[in-house]
Amino acid sequence: MEKKITVLPGDGIGPEVIAAAVRVLKVIGKRYNHDFQLAYAAIGGAAIDQFNNPLPEKTIEMCKESDAILLGAVGGPKWDNNPAELRPEKGLLNIRKTFDLFANLRPVKAFPSLLDASPLKREVAENVDLMIVRELTGGIYFGEKHRTEDEASDLNVYSRQEIERIVDKAFELAKLRKGRLCSVDKANVLETSRLWRQIVEEKKEQYPEIAVEHNLVDSVAMKLITNPEHYDVVVTDNMFGDILSDEASVITGSLGVLPSASIRSDHFGLYEPVHGSAPEIAGEGIANPAAAILSVAMMLRYSFGMTVEAEEIEKAVDDVFNDGCYTADLVKNGEPSFTTDEWTDKVIAK
Amino acid sequence: MEKKITVLPGDGIGPEVIAAAVRVLKVIGKRYNHDFQLAYAAIGGAAIDQFNNPLPEKTIEMCKESDAILLGAVGGPKWDNNPAELRPEKGLLNIRKTFDLFANLRPVKAFPSLLDASPLKREVAENVDLMIVRELTGGIYFGEKHRTEDEASDLNVYSRQEIERIVDKAFELAKLRKGRLCSVDKANVLETSRLWRQIVEEKKEQYPEIAVEHNLVDSVAMKLITNPEHYDVVVTDNMFGDILSDEASVITGSLGVLPSASIRSDHFGLYEPVHGSAPEIAGEGIANPAAAILSVAMMLRYSFGMTVEAEEIEKAVDDVFNDGCYTADLVKNGEPSFTTDEWTDKVIAK
Ligand SMILES: CC(C)[C@H](C(=O)O)[C@@H](O)C(=O)O
Ligand SMILES: CC(C)[C@H](C(=O)O)[C@@H](O)C(=O)O
Repeated sequence: MEKKITVLPGDGIGPEVIAAAVRVLKVIGKRYNHDFQLAYAAIGGAAIDQFNNPLPEKTIEMCKESDAILLGAVGGPKWDNNPAELRPEKGLLNIRKTFDLFANLRPVKAFPSLLDASPLKREVAENVDLMIVRELTGGIYFGEKHRTEDEASDLNVYSRQEIERIVDKAFELAKLRKGRLCSVDKANVLETSRLWRQIVEEKKEQYPEIAVEHNLVDSVAMKLITNPEHYDVVVTDNMFGDILSDEASVITGSLGVLPSASIRSDHFGLYEPVHGSAPEIAGEGIANPAAAILSVAMMLRYSFGMTVEAEEIEKAVDDVFNDGCYTADLVKNGEPSFTTDEWTDKVIAK
Repeated sequence: MEKKITVLPGDGIGPEVIAAAVRVLKVIGKRYNHDFQLAYAAIGGAAIDQFNNPLPEKTIEMCKESDAILLGAVGGPKWDNNPAELRPEKGLLNIRKTFDLFANLRPVKAFPSLLDASPLKREVAENVDLMIVRELTGGIYFGEKHRTEDEASDLNVYSRQEIERIVDKAFELAKLRKGRLCSVDKANVLETSRLWRQIVEEKKEQYPEIAVEHNLVDSVAMKLITNPEHYDVVVTDNMFGDILSDEASVITGSLGVLPSASIRSDHFGLYEPVHGSAPEIAGEGIANPAAAILSVAMMLRYSFGMTVEAEEIEKAVDDVFNDGCYTADLVKNGEPSFTTDEWTDKVIAK
């Protein structure tokens, strides 16, 4: 197959982990006879420096012509005091909105060999295998904002259609997984949550094989830590999803190895590691490329339908961890570790 | 001293744990020669059943005439399908708003003897001693709501004055504690957060002895689990505070023993356990009264300025735990445990 991919390395360790992920992608391309055509473009701080715009028109054009986007990370202290429009995150928010990437998928699965690094007890974290499905282009992120000297406001607003499509996506994902869906809201306080809950209730008729529960966001914030095994697919709005997906990312101790996908209803999507740009270690060649590599696997699965290829990557990463090979972020101070490139070599060798 | 207290036992285990807390309060009154005058009133489901109103006018009148309110818990399956205005939680939201109880204080402190019940590793949880200060009468909870067939919205709105008073309260509390304040917002997305952050920046000039940091809500949702020791006082808005305070409540494994206070600028306040009404064990006499008893201690401290008396209660609870005496919620299945009354006797004996 021929696939066009726009690569947006971004800031900090973004370029390093993306370089590693691209090496893996090329190996897969060769082995399975796929023609992956890569084109590089700027986003975030790098784009601000070059074009004074965190998401230049040129980048948008290139993404439009491609089948998927692979992103590193954006941000860094250099741009922290810029006005809102000239901040790296703005590039991220804009690309989500421009391409209508309404579904953010964040799987969290325990790697047994990494559980020592988890803040949770082994028995609490070891069987975790969940996916947070976050609405990504609506809600309080994009509602009307007002500001005067003495007052500020943000409107949280959702239409039926916005909720329906993310809820459908979550049901579809639950079908492919363990068949359980937890919908998270604050229906005892918010009108948007009451509409959300009503739509989930309506939709569940269409998915009789899925076990559905509703739970309040405060209660889920607790249960994600006390009993994370309970969850399979968790679907929620943009703001709650931002908080809960980050909270969930620490469960297994492997924040540095978590991938994410931001997709829409056709197969186009943006794939990026969950971790940030980690400017403090950028350029040292020690960043953990696992999350970027696993993001490539998600791209193969969700955008290109290449399940076998995706599984091969996931298995290779798993094997390398099981062999006890880790980058610096996963070993205790002073213990030997692999560089980004060495670790990627290991994965490729599998 | 003479103090009037309105007691609102509420639903489920509320009446049982409140009865225990009142016993402790009476012992303290006798020992220190305080005249605590108690008057009982209805709230929540109990009030809906009796008066068709989760916060009857009569209850409001009685609270107005008192120096503090002691509340058990509200809610239960019986009222779960009621319309919003006739739900037990509405009583809670109304009493907060009616009495302008804008500051919700939720301390979380590790009891070493309870750490086995924590989902977190002992070394992560054992030194935790933090307090979440949540704005309780503004933000998206009370902003304008709209609903049509196909759209719903909730307005998140804060005035300068609303933010200033909660931020001041948090600074004052930090002074009495370890001198560190973390202000939590989502300033990279929300206008309300940008106003919030600006006000914290302005205020910090008045409190040069306090070390202030700003952090994003998603990042705090992670760090509360990976490094909870980092925090002393954490201040945030109503919605973020709802989520983060519940998340924080699981850190130490002692959710059932956490108290809370909801106060305003004079010394009036409402005190209640963090746990809910636990209808599944109501009436069995096995509920853990520790949170209610510690809520009485908070009342003595924050509303009545009785620090010595408060500390005596806190020390007694601590001692009883250290002696290995637990109610059923804190022991493994089958191990012996104390009833609500027996456990309260132990505390009183100390
Ligand atoms: C950078 C920020 C605007 C963004 C968000 O809140 O969506 C980030 O936290 C994320 O989750 O991707
Ligand atoms: C019952 C509910 C409305 C309430 C809230 O969200 O404030 C509760 O969760 C709390 O935190 O006291």
